[in-house]
Amino acid sequence: MSEIISSTSNARIKSIRKLRGRKQRDEQQVFFVEGVRIVGEALAEGWPIVELIISPELVGDGYGRHLISEMSHKKINQLVVDSNVFRSISTKDGPKGLAAVICQRWYPVDFILTQPGLWICLDRIQDPGNLGTIMRTADAVGAKGLILIDECTDPYDSGSVRSSMGAIFSIPLIKTTNQDFQAFVLRNHLPVIGASDSAPLDFRLVNYAANMILMMGSERQGLSEPLVQLSTHLVSIPMAGKSDSLNLAVATGIILYEIYNQNHPAREG
Amino acid sequence: MSEIISSTSNARIKSIRKLRGRKQRDEQQVFFVEGVRIVGEALAEGWPIVELIISPELVGDGYGRHLISEMSHKKINQLVVDSNVFRSISTKDGPKGLAAVICQRWYPVDFILTQPGLWICLDRIQDPGNLGTIMRTADAVGAKGLILIDECTDPYDSGSVRSSMGAIFSIPLIKTTNQDFQAFVLRNHLPVIGASDSAPLDFRLVNYAANMILMMGSERQGLSEPLVQLSTHLVSIPMAGKSDSLNLAVATGIILYEIYNQNHPAREG
Repeated sequence: MSEIISSTSNARIKSIRKLRGRKQRDEQQVFFVEGVRIVGEALAEGWPIVELIISPELVGDGYGRHLISEMSHKKINQLVVDSNVFRSISTKDGPKGLAAVICQRWYPVDFILTQPGLWICLDRIQDPGNLGTIMRTADAVGAKGLILIDECTDPYDSGSVRSSMGAIFSIPLIKTTNQDFQAFVLRNHLPVIGASDSAPLDFRLVNYAANMILMMGSERQGLSEPLVQLSTHLVSIPMAGKSDSLNLAVATGIILYEIYNQNHPAREG
Repeated sequence: MSEIISSTSNARIKSIRKLRGRKQRDEQQVFFVEGVRIVGEALAEGWPIVELIISPELVGDGYGRHLISEMSHKKINQLVVDSNVFRSISTKDGPKGLAAVICQRWYPVDFILTQPGLWICLDRIQDPGNLGTIMRTADAVGAKGLILIDECTDPYDSGSVRSSMGAIFSIPLIKTTNQDFQAFVLRNHLPVIGASDSAPLDFRLVNYAANMILMMGSERQGLSEPLVQLSTHLVSIPMAGKSDSLNLAVATGIILYEIYNQNHPAREG
């Protein structure tokens, strides 16, 4: 076993702590996850793990220990630290002694053409919890991936990763600009459905193709005008109360399940 | 205008700061909100405001100033503080100089009988963001109120109030125990639909009555066994991906809109 790092100001430890900030994550194109279950999922889904951080005192004898031995066989770099150092990089109350630095994975826009099906495009989404929750729902309806337009919150932010409940490892991510996305859609004649609070068309009245892109706007501003213009149909969710809008992750879930339902009719058990 | 409080250790200010904790809120049966829009909503919806906290330096000349003068007419107690004191009670980055302490409002279980329609029962829900988001969706579908069973997170927590986007003021809240709720449902022969990840019945195959109670379980544990047993039908949302569950607020939104859709068919515009 390698030497145990016991200084919280160790250069490698400091650099891992900095991954809490988006700047460092963007520059290094990696992200930090902690917890036995999530590290296990990264491994199971074949994500390139740069480094495993282990605090033997904190890891129990169960699944965590088993994972570590499995990763030793795979020759994954291991950083062994004492519990104090682990706590200094952890953002959890009861850290479990297992964390990993993992390479980010981004796909080019043309990847959409190789994976026909349902795609979700998010225009300048700001809340990491909403983004993670949408990844989780996207996985549930078997969507092919997410397209992030312009300045979105980082899907590799710890809040987004947590809310995704593992979907961060199964849902492909594409990052592009409004302009490039428009050009791509027009070039390939793809059906795109936009959602807007003010659209007169009830979302239940559209026939959704199995191969399509659902576009959702930012929490505060909704869809940008060029994407409104790009929409094959612009739909809204009817509302009966005082509120004039739904939470973005909830609204996305409701429309995604309408699309899912139309393509997978319910059958009596 | 009253004297300006300039000490952050003023007894009244200290007591307001303590409302961040649930214990103090429970004991005093009040809650704290800040922001011009939300204070305006509380006023518009006729909630009993115990005290208004105003920092004239921070309040601009717009709607906030207008609200304050409106409340002076209503003889609402005003606590005038300097910007430093206001920042000490604020949890926001750019505090706007207007906050309020408001009386909590709870309804008895029998209130359900006076308000026939759709009710939502939440069993030991833990996340304030989820709770607030469900209030927001409840308002959107015109639900009559929320029933909180056993140890739920506090709807008057600042995170829940924030996520509710004002629905905290329009959605009646009932707090009760599992046992009392069961007795109430059985006594009044109310249709209750429970949601459970493992239920074999697809939620789209049920005919939902206009007057019914939808029961959702906690984020980690789902519905408790007695509520599963109580259910007229137990439904699940189909899932196609690797995830075995949806975010609770998203799942609630999806089922609520199915109930809404069945009772309000879409019409061509």
